[in-house]
Amino acid sequence: MNDAAFRAVDAILAKREGSEHSEADLEALVRGYVAGDVPDYQMAAWLMAVCFQGMTERETARLTLAMAHSGEVLDLRDLPHTVDKHSTGGVGDKTTLVLAPLLAAMGGTVAKMSGRGLGHTGGTVDKLESIPGFRTELDEDAFLRQAREVGVVVTGQSKDLAPADGMMYALRDATGTVASLPLIASSIMSKKLAGGADAIVLDVKVGSGAFMKTLADARALAETMVAIGEHAGRQVRAVLTNMTEPLGLAVGNAVEVEEAAACLRGEGPEDLLDLCLTLAERVLDASGLPADRAALQDAVDSGRAHERFERWISAQGGDPSAVRHLELAPDTWHLRAPADGVVCRLDALAVGRAVGALGGGRSRKGDAVDAGVGVILQAKVGHAVARGDAIATVLHRNGKGLDVAKALLEGAVTVSDAAEAAPLILDRDVR
Amino acid sequence: MNDAAFRAVDAILAKREGSEHSEADLEALVRGYVAGDVPDYQMAAWLMAVCFQGMTERETARLTLAMAHSGEVLDLRDLPHTVDKHSTGGVGDKTTLVLAPLLAAMGGTVAKMSGRGLGHTGGTVDKLESIPGFRTELDEDAFLRQAREVGVVVTGQSKDLAPADGMMYALRDATGTVASLPLIASSIMSKKLAGGADAIVLDVKVGSGAFMKTLADARALAETMVAIGEHAGRQVRAVLTNMTEPLGLAVGNAVEVEEAAACLRGEGPEDLLDLCLTLAERVLDASGLPADRAALQDAVDSGRAHERFERWISAQGGDPSAVRHLELAPDTWHLRAPADGVVCRLDALAVGRAVGALGGGRSRKGDAVDAGVGVILQAKVGHAVARGDAIATVLHRNGKGLDVAKALLEGAVTVSDAAEAAPLILDRDVR
Repeated sequence: MNDAAFRAVDAILAKREGSEHSEADLEALVRGYVAGDVPDYQMAAWLMAVCFQGMTERETARLTLAMAHSGEVLDLRDLPHTVDKHSTGGVGDKTTLVLAPLLAAMGGTVAKMSGRGLGHTGGTVDKLESIPGFRTELDEDAFLRQAREVGVVVTGQSKDLAPADGMMYALRDATGTVASLPLIASSIMSKKLAGGADAIVLDVKVGSGAFMKTLADARALAETMVAIGEHAGRQVRAVLTNMTEPLGLAVGNAVEVEEAAACLRGEGPEDLLDLCLTLAERVLDASGLPADRAALQDAVDSGRAHERFERWISAQGGDPSAVRHLELAPDTWHLRAPADGVVCRLDALAVGRAVGALGGGRSRKGDAVDAGVGVILQAKVGHAVARGDAIATVLHRNGKGLDVAKALLEGAVTVSDAAEAAPLILDRDVR
Repeated sequence: MNDAAFRAVDAILAKREGSEHSEADLEALVRGYVAGDVPDYQMAAWLMAVCFQGMTERETARLTLAMAHSGEVLDLRDLPHTVDKHSTGGVGDKTTLVLAPLLAAMGGTVAKMSGRGLGHTGGTVDKLESIPGFRTELDEDAFLRQAREVGVVVTGQSKDLAPADGMMYALRDATGTVASLPLIASSIMSKKLAGGADAIVLDVKVGSGAFMKTLADARALAETMVAIGEHAGRQVRAVLTNMTEPLGLAVGNAVEVEEAAACLRGEGPEDLLDLCLTLAERVLDASGLPADRAALQDAVDSGRAHERFERWISAQGGDPSAVRHLELAPDTWHLRAPADGVVCRLDALAVGRAVGALGGGRSRKGDAVDAGVGVILQAKVGHAVARGDAIATVLHRNGKGLDVAKALLEGAVTVSDAAEAAPLILDRDVR
């Protein structure tokens, strides 16, 4: 590599012409951008050129590695069977809370630094903080020790993992360059690679509530990310899942923790358990561990998975017994079925936005999140309802945001004579 | 227009999708950029999207008008038959010096503010400054008074004409977005429209020494610029001309002034006079003035054109008699024919770069230009030469830049058995 010879304008012109970048050029571009030598306007022009010209699989992997190495990389090499999961975002998605202790109970190690992110509902760290006493900031020694002793540790992002991604994402957001398969894939995978796990499972969501609207787009993204993992020497598997209605019945930080715990006791909604077992199978297989569905089901039925969940919560200072009675917003409002019939539509995005309106998410970095608000569904697509039945219960605080939430929820649900239930898992093994 | 409702990211996304922008959006984009509300990185992304998606003719005209009105616009409405010329750049191109007094002698008014620009050789203002005493900075009153009394005034750009263009050009240069027909056309025409003349002739160069390498590209650019003029209510004509060898025999600031004066006395090279008469015909026609070739030739032959040149020089403080003996670099070197034969190639760009190497141009704003250096050709394409004949004479100052100039010139010329002379004027009337 010879950064002195690198000129960003030449890289932009090369991409504009449709050339494939070398590893050295992509490293120089990303390093220069993080260092401030390549200004935002050059990166913006390059990103737009990528939107039109695309990148080869090899090139996308090179970009991803350059981004992954733009800051610190978690060193998890001393831990056995490190596994990680990424979801491309969904409403009511509490799979990390179920999957992490389940994987630990099966011999894997989940040592995860999770960003808070922006969204209608909080991220995993926000959900965990609804548990009284739970600490999301651990120093590196404590992080690694807990990973070794408990097999699960999830904290906020204290290290500067893949800073190029954060910078590039903010720029893409402002320059109309978000929608680009290689840029989306490299953004996700750079953080995963910097996160250090050997085996990674990706839950790529498809549908109205997801970033990828079509199965074909989702499959292309999944395949690209799997190929990046291969190029980087990691074991990556991907699953395509439906995100038209929320996952499970609970949407909101505290209620999702309760639902995850219930799921680990075998008392959770079927769709959530099915997805978690599927993701666990794929990532355990990738990690070289036994990944038998029956064994996974047994880890739940025997209580071992829930026991691991309790050890994890305790290790990070939380009270596991408190999880059954977390502080919830005290006021309720019920969305009622307008007619007899079957729920044929329950729009995930609208439900997510309703929880956001109640104060359950953040639109800007640093905003506070109200862990107690949320929506609990009494019905899902395919369920029969009678006129006046509660379809959803809103947990709100003194009416804050309720008008908006009501309007969103009333528009989110359709009841008709019949409904076609969409399968949750569209492809269990994209490789 | 409602700028408050304008979001640059939406404009970028619309262009990325291939939509046509409204007048209001383009005005808001350009105004926001000049005001600093639209940052460089958003403009850069938009420019790259334009490179891929293009712009409609109507849209390009809207952009051009928004750029033309981004600063001051010269008000020449009180002057009769205001005419202007623009050349897309060439080597040895001193047509403005010939054309301006010729047009004035025919009843037109040339009131021109000319940028210094960057290039291998100086711009028109640099050339004029090789005349002792010539003032290129006049206040507005003096500028308009001279235009009215003499019919010709050419100064440096004292007003902030089309500042959006300067800003956008610098950004395009740094972001690989220079090559784009609508962006090139709007850049050129925004300055011409802000320059205020009613009738404009465009000399679009084609060939190795020009920005447009093919006739088809040059024609497309010319047609787009004519259409912009129509949309803006100006009379615009375009001529396509060959730029593979230099125009005329002299390249360099002072030697080009001498050659222009000779041309006005009927003693200049044939190609230069031919081009100037052609451009004059087109723009006089556009301006509604008699534009007969014989009348133009008579303006030269009778001395009226040269007389007007002398009045112009005097009016701006120069000594017309000094034009015949300007200060030239004292040292010479001759490029000699390597064999008997015919000159079949004389690369314009290489000759231009040679003069630049001698100190005759500037690569950065504010660099000083040596008016006395240059190259004088003794032969052009199609001329027979004997081995050892001088093909070109280099005027240098104590050897400064001579090695580079020699190497460039030696590579610029090919002598062979035969040569096909290319026509200078490829299309005399693009409309």
